[in-house]
Order: sequence, then structure tokens, then C-alpha cells
Amino acid sequence: MDENSRIKVIPLGGLEQIGMNMTAFEYNDSIVVVDCGLSFPDDEMLGIDCVIPDITFLRENVEKIKGFVITHGHEDHIGALPYVLKEINAPVYATKLTMGIIEGKLEEHALLDVVKRKVIKFGQSIHLGDFRIEFIRTNHSIADAAALAIHTPVGIIVHTGDFKVDYTPVFGDAINLTRFSELGKKGVLALMCDSTNVLRPGFTPSERTVGSTFDHIFAEHTKSRIIIATFASNVDRVQQIINTACKYNRKVIVEGRSMVNIISVAKDMDYLKIPENTLISIEEMKNYTDDQLVLITTGSQGESMAALSRMAASIHRKVQIKPGDTIVFSSTPIPGNEKAVSKVINELYMKGADVIFQDTHVSGHACQEEIKLMYSLIKPKFSIPVHGEYRHLKKHGELAQMMGIPKENVFLMESGDVLSIGKEEAKIVGKVPAGSVLVDGLGVGDVGNIVLRDRQNLAENGIIIVVLTLEKYSNQILAGPDIVTRGFVYVRESENLIEDAKEVVTDALLDCLSGRNADWGKIKMVVKDSLGEYLWKKMKRSPMILPIIMEVE
Amino acid sequence: MDENSRIKVIPLGGLEQIGMNMTAFEYNDSIVVVDCGLSFPDDEMLGIDCVIPDITFLRENVEKIKGFVITHGHEDHIGALPYVLKEINAPVYATKLTMGIIEGKLEEHALLDVVKRKVIKFGQSIHLGDFRIEFIRTNHSIADAAALAIHTPVGIIVHTGDFKVDYTPVFGDAINLTRFSELGKKGVLALMCDSTNVLRPGFTPSERTVGSTFDHIFAEHTKSRIIIATFASNVDRVQQIINTACKYNRKVIVEGRSMVNIISVAKDMDYLKIPENTLISIEEMKNYTDDQLVLITTGSQGESMAALSRMAASIHRKVQIKPGDTIVFSSTPIPGNEKAVSKVINELYMKGADVIFQDTHVSGHACQEEIKLMYSLIKPKFSIPVHGEYRHLKKHGELAQMMGIPKENVFLMESGDVLSIGKEEAKIVGKVPAGSVLVDGLGVGDVGNIVLRDRQNLAENGIIIVVLTLEKYSNQILAGPDIVTRGFVYVRESENLIEDAKEVVTDALLDCLSGRNADWGKIKMVVKDSLGEYLWKKMKRSPMILPIIMEVE
Repeated sequence: MDENSRIKVIPLGGLEQIGMNMTAFEYNDSIVVVDCGLSFPDDEMLGIDCVIPDITFLRENVEKIKGFVITHGHEDHIGALPYVLKEINAPVYATKLTMGIIEGKLEEHALLDVVKRKVIKFGQSIHLGDFRIEFIRTNHSIADAAALAIHTPVGIIVHTGDFKVDYTPVFGDAINLTRFSELGKKGVLALMCDSTNVLRPGFTPSERTVGSTFDHIFAEHTKSRIIIATFASNVDRVQQIINTACKYNRKVIVEGRSMVNIISVAKDMDYLKIPENTLISIEEMKNYTDDQLVLITTGSQGESMAALSRMAASIHRKVQIKPGDTIVFSSTPIPGNEKAVSKVINELYMKGADVIFQDTHVSGHACQEEIKLMYSLIKPKFSIPVHGEYRHLKKHGELAQMMGIPKENVFLMESGDVLSIGKEEAKIVGKVPAGSVLVDGLGVGDVGNIVLRDRQNLAENGIIIVVLTLEKYSNQILAGPDIVTRGFVYVRESENLIEDAKEVVTDALLDCLSGRNADWGKIKMVVKDSLGEYLWKKMKRSPMILPIIMEVE
Repeated sequence: MDENSRIKVIPLGGLEQIGMNMTAFEYNDSIVVVDCGLSFPDDEMLGIDCVIPDITFLRENVEKIKGFVITHGHEDHIGALPYVLKEINAPVYATKLTMGIIEGKLEEHALLDVVKRKVIKFGQSIHLGDFRIEFIRTNHSIADAAALAIHTPVGIIVHTGDFKVDYTPVFGDAINLTRFSELGKKGVLALMCDSTNVLRPGFTPSERTVGSTFDHIFAEHTKSRIIIATFASNVDRVQQIINTACKYNRKVIVEGRSMVNIISVAKDMDYLKIPENTLISIEEMKNYTDDQLVLITTGSQGESMAALSRMAASIHRKVQIKPGDTIVFSSTPIPGNEKAVSKVINELYMKGADVIFQDTHVSGHACQEEIKLMYSLIKPKFSIPVHGEYRHLKKHGELAQMMGIPKENVFLMESGDVLSIGKEEAKIVGKVPAGSVLVDGLGVGDVGNIVLRDRQNLAENGIIIVVLTLEKYSNQILAGPDIVTRGFVYVRESENLIEDAKEVVTDALLDCLSGRNADWGKIKMVVKDSLGEYLWKKMKRSPMILPIIMEVE
């Protein structure tokens, strides 16, 4: 195999689970990295703020890295940039709005003066080492989303990013199908295509359809205050709410930190057109009647700290939900958030509000027919399904085969797999380190499996701490054993239990200390065993037992 | 208001959330309790095994209680019985299969010899104090489900239990619409009707439709081993799998503890017809080829300890998933379980199995048209929507109004509300204690909010324990401060951090102890403050800090 005529594609995240998208492309001494996302912690990742990809591979090849190329401004594509750029300072390339959002993040991490950046226009290409990377317009649930045509010495690789086909987008132009068609005619080596909605037949409706739903809702609820929750980054959705608000002579209030941030970026960059005297501050609300107001807010996923959730729970400082309010969820729950969303809806209903959550959202991802359209235009030799759990990749692989890609040319990859692509064939040739790095506060990677397992155990069973002070040499108990518990039982109501437990431990200790060879390891074991057995017998529970011995001369 | 001509309806659970169904009916000196269910813990209820209703009201009126009347054998209707019967030993009334399942539970809790029970046939009535309670056949996702007509001196209250309308049930007869119609003609005071599926338009399909899907699947997968996961209690579903298995000459293996239990009860009671030589043990599997086998298993909700999940994770001791296996999820994920189910599906696909989860399940609950049918037949004066979150009750209330019930006759109740119903009007007259009691191991109610808050804190941030031994009177430090952490950082990689923290605490302590009035409260506060501030500044984290002081003379 001539290594000089092959390109390596190495996904470093984004496959086993949605989120944390990052793919490295390597050719000789050039590496470009496409996207650099984070993901949100699973239920088992207790206390974790976010999860970023393991970048061991990038770290070990830092001198080859020519830059980070970003497809669009969602967290699962840009969120890890501040963490990764601190270690690997390479230039960042993105479209205008995407870069605007990235710059907000870099500023928070004091990286704005450190990191080189370049805004790229659709149709424009950048040369990065042996690669030429062309930005192609697509549609998605955030403006300025790009697909990438990665021109390499071996051939062209098309990476769709996250996309849908919207012939009538709210802002800007429709996806550039013509360019995909040209590339297809020229010959494309591999297609890396979004798999998120591959289980859904048909076509994702245009973003514009939501606008007409808003029109209906406003027409039917002329008397009530309208509150609409949606994703902060869905600027087109916000634009449609504003359009409808203007049509019905309502003032618009924006509430929720991330919503305020993104709207301000989008407005400054002219991605959002807000007629004068439309936007008012939350303090000005009191000057208007309910039928003159629309609130656009965060919290569409039931996130407990978001604005709408706080309103529903009556802990929002400035907005109280009242009977007659019309609340619109312009979103669908992301898997895992269903119960949280239900909780908020129930609370809103209980306050007498009307809640609307039907036909108020469309997806930003391509369904089966759109994915087929891409295969039909691009006609790739190899198919590499991306952006999905394994079930999505698998279904995508079947769909690629229906579109004429031979089975052996479809690659269902795992993070860390190294796919080596030649002009005629491709194969997985190795594996590099890949996985999740947990971020907790300022700590990146210092919480690992042992800490998580302890947290899990503490969460389920609580902790019992047994402290005693021994006299050095004589091993005589000078103080204790004292027992302190947290997360186990409410102590004031369980005094007898704790007293009895103390007795059990004391008996076992005295027995142990009277013998020979009572080293600390043995003493601790005796405490754990005697107390553990007692509590299991008495309560069928297994709290974490932590013996601590102090020594006084 | 003449108290002697009024009946009180008091829901003690099952409203704010699905699960934990229990309603008390009171007339003068008679109370009957309908259902006695548990619910499964929310995500925030860390370490909790199950949740049962607060029975303070029943406890305070124990001499009035005539019995527990159970509608059907699902956990959310019978699961709290063993706990409640230990305190309130009243007779239990239920249909045959329901009683069979209850008896299994009572046996586990050694209550079989203590609790009086009576099996009731459909059409039969029992007299309990001032009440006469009639059992009426319905359909549901478990056999022998009953609605109750509660005949009281004030009028008839119909409680549907959980139901659907199945004109072609797999086992037994269709719902007894004739009887509901007769009652309606006679005059019904109040209808308490299942709200679970009230958000869904149309009609729930017959259980039999799933049978024909099974036929298709078996016809298309003649070569592979078929593994079907479903709810253990859905005996009719199991019957249909067995029917299809016989048709295609496959042997059936049942796997998963709850599945084995329920099938054995149902088989003994003739609710399940299994032709001879159909069932084989899991050990006999090796004597057959893949195309001769069907496994029926638990785990359709992705429960981590259930049989299918263990197979998917390669930790099942007797069944290994292999390429070519066909796995059928005969279920839909209950809200909250979506991610767990996805995880199992991904793992199965990765092992090369084919996974089918479309058209393989129907709900056991009535949709809008079925609920309307009940209103149309029963023509109640008052509507009391039950079995749903508030959003369901609210929608149900709107539907009742569409069916001609005046708004003031629809009661959206909360647990603990006391609804007093007279012949002409009804109103909420008070509130009794109601809520959740947490069960953890053998402890019922000993884990409360303080313990849960501690568990939450421990789960997210871990714990740091600071121990020191002081000399009595002099307050001189004899040993320590020692620092022990769990669930905070991995200590071996953070030695410096711990050493620095120790220094911070020691400095603060020496400063404090050199002053006057250094009582233990103050010392503990100094430890917490100095360490807390240091860690937040250094790591932006707030572990639980637990200072423990020992004293030696």
C-alpha cells in the first residue's frame, strides 16, 4: 500500500452518541480537524458539566495540524473548542455567524487574542497543507451551516455537516444542490453524511411551516400574553416569531441568558431583522397589556435552571405565569428530556395557562428522502455515515446500499477507527485513542471512573464515616469510635440505630485490638465488615463505610 | 349540607404522576379503598427502591376501612399492598388473575396467612359497609382487568380502572359495554375514567393486531433465532408469541425472573394456553437449531439488570447474542426510558443482530374516541378524570365538556383533595395528608428530603472529610487535620491539591485556636469556610465538607 496516495479519516467523537463531533483528516504531514464539539453528560456522569473528546491523537501530531474547520455553530460542533485550543493552538475557519458564536466562547475563556481565525464565505475555499476545503451552503436549524468539500490528492470527500434540505428557508438561500451535483459529476471519493433522522421516512418540512403555525396561534389567542420557548440558537425560528409579533402588533421580550446572547450576536451581524420599537426590555413589560406582548424564552427542554422552567415553578424574578397565558413549546424533547418537559407543562397547566406543543417545531436534520437525494447527486464511491448512534449508522448504511453503494464500500466506524482511503479501495487500518474526557468545574479529565463510581455509590446509599483516635504503640482507643452519616438516614429520627451501630463497631474493634498484628488495614477491615453486616441485616442497605483512624502519641 | 346524604371521594395518589394509584371512598362510617399501587422513583430520588402513597388518612380512619378493592394486577395498582396491609389489615377483593399476582407478593412479605382475600367474578358484587361494589369486565394490557360500579346511597360512581376497548381480545371477552350502557340508563352520579392516552386521538388498536405482526416477522425470519422482549405482565402478548411459535414449529424459552413468575401464575390459572412440548428450559436450548427457537424475555424498557439488557451487554450467563439473531421489542419506551432502550438497541446492532421495534406493540389504554364512548354510554353527572399527570387530566376535562358535562361538574383533583358529592352538586371540601413515602431497602419513610438533598450533593460534588483530634481543655491539635475524599478527585493524581488544602485548613485552624472562644461550632465553620473558599477558587467546585473533631484528655 503506497501511503503517499492515501488519505486517513479518523473520527474522534460523534459516533457512539450524538454530540462531541470531531473528525481528523490526515494526508502525509497535513491534518485538518472538522468540528470540535462537546456533549452533555449522561445520567451516570454525576456532577459532570460537559464531556469533550479525547485529543491524545491530536496532541501527538500537533505539528501536523493545519487548522480547525467548523461546519456550524451548535454546541456539539463547537463546544470543545475552548478546551482543545488551549492545548492545540491552530487557526479556526468558519462562516460568519458560526464564527460570531465561537468568538463569544473564546472571549469567555480569554482566548480571543490568542487564536487565529478566518471567516469563510460559501463557495470560498481555503488551502490547509495538502487539503483544499470548500464551504458549501446547506440548511439547518441554525443559519450559516456549511457542508465541506475536502479536496485531497486522492479525491474529494464531502462532509455534509448537520443539514436538511429547505427549498424555502427563512433566512438566506436554499442548500446549494447545484454544487453537490457538480461535485458528483466530477467524481466524489467519499460521502460523510448526517444520520440523525435516518430512521424517519420522507422529507423534513421547511422551517417556514412553523411560521404559519405561529400565525394561526396568534390569530386564535388575540387576548392572551404569548410566551414561546425554543432553542436559543434557532435564529430563524426567532425571526419568524418576531415577524408574527409585528404582524399582530405585539412587542417582543427576550428572556434567558443564552437566548439574549445569541440574538444579540445574530442581530449585530444582520442575521436577524428586528423592526425598530419591536424589542422591549423585561422591565418595560408592565407598560403593556397582555395582548400586546410576546416573550421569547429559553427552557424548551425543561432544563431546570432555564427561564421558562423558573416561570413554571414560580421562581422567576420578573415573570409570573397567570391564567390566560398561552405558552408555546416550539421544540420537541431531545431523548432523555421527556420527563423534565412534562413536568414544566404540568406546572404551567396548573397555573391556568394554555400550553401548545403541536405543529410548532420542525427538525433541522434530513430525513430518508433528503439523504437519498444527497447520494443521488454526489454519487460517492465510499459511504461513511456520521452523526448518529450505531442504530442510525446501521440504518444509514442500509440506505446507502439501496442507493447503489456496494456493501464493502460502506464503513460504519467507531470513534478512534482509522479509515485509510485510496483511489480504488478503503479499509480500516488501525485505531487511535478516542473517548470521553469529563469536565467538572475547572477540572478537565481529573474525574475518572473511580470518582464516578464513588459518586454513584454515595448517591444511592450515602456514606457512614467511623472515626477513632488510637494511642500510638499501645493501640489503645483514646477517642471514638464516632459515627457520622450523610445521605443515609435522617439522624435525629434514627438515634437508636446509630447508637447500636456504634456498639457493634466498638465490640468488633476491642476484639481486634486485643489480638496481635492489629495494623490499620486490619482495623479498617474490621470496621467495614462488622458495620456492613449489621446494616445489611437490619436495613438491607449498603452505604459506603469509611473508617478513619487518627493516631496520638 | 347534610353530611348523611353525601359521599366523599379522596384520591391518595395516582394524579400528579402516573403510578401509585389509590382512592378512598367514604360514606358515614364506611371507607373502601380502590387500588393500592406503587410508583418507581424519579431521577432525583437517589437510591430509592420504590415509592408508596402516604396513608396517614387511612391510618387515622382505620376502624372505618372495609376493604381494598383492586382493579387489575399491575404494580401501579397493587405494588403498595404489602406495605399498606402491614399497617392496615383489611380484606382484599380482586378478580382471579389479579389475586394470583397479589398472592405472590403477599407470600414474599409473609402476609399470606394474615390477610383475608376474596376472588370476585365479573358481574358479581360485594357489600362493603354502605357500599356495594360491582366488578365489570374491561380490556387492558393484562387479563382480568375490571372497572368498578360503586353503588352508594347517593348514587353510582363508575371507576374504569385502566382500560381500553378491545372488540377482539386475545383472551376472554370484550369489555362489557352493555353493562356500562345499562348503568348509564339507570343514572350514574360520577365517572372516574383513565386519562393515560387522552392526548391521543382515535382508537387504540386491538391486541390481536400485534399477533399478525408476529406472524409476518416469523414468516420473514425463518432462519434466525428470534428473541422477543415484552412486559412480563402482558400475558396476552405472551400468548400470541406462543401461538405464532407453534405455528412456525419453534420451541419457546422464557427468561427473566418476573416473566417466569407471571407466566407460571397465568399458566396455573389457565390464563395462558401452552401446547405440550412447546416450552423448553434455557438449558435445553443447545439441543435445537436457531430456526427452532423463540426466547421471550424481560428488558423491553432497557432496565439495566433485565435479561435482554444483560444479553446485549454480554453479561448474560446463558444467552449470547450473535449475528443473525432477530430481536423484537414488543413495547414502546415509557417516558424516561428512551435513552436506556436506545443503548440496548445499539449494543444489539453492534453484535450483528437485527432489531425490530415497529408495529410490535399496542397500548393498553383508551384513546380519545374510546373515552368518549364511555361518556356516551355512562352519561355521568360529574366527571373526575383519573390516572394521569395534570396535563392529561386537563385535556380529559376538556373532552368531558365536549361530551356535555358542564364545566362546574368536572373535577381536576390533586392527591389529598376531598370531593364531597351530593345528588345535585359536588365540591372540594378539604384536604387530607397525601404524598409520597420513599422505600429504601427495609426502610419505609426513613429517607426524607434532607437525606435526598445530601445524596444529590454527594452525587454531584463528592465529599471531603477533615478530621482532627484536639486535646481537651487546651484545644491543642494532637493529630490531623487529615483529609479524606470520596467522589471528589482521584487522589493519587491530585496529591498536591490535597497537601495544599491541608495547609490551608491548618493555617486557618491555628489562627482560630489561638483566639478565644474557639468552640467546636466555630472550629467546624472555620474548616468549612477556608477549605470551601480555597477549592472554589482553585477548581470551581463545591464538594460537601464534613469536619469531624475528636477529643482526647
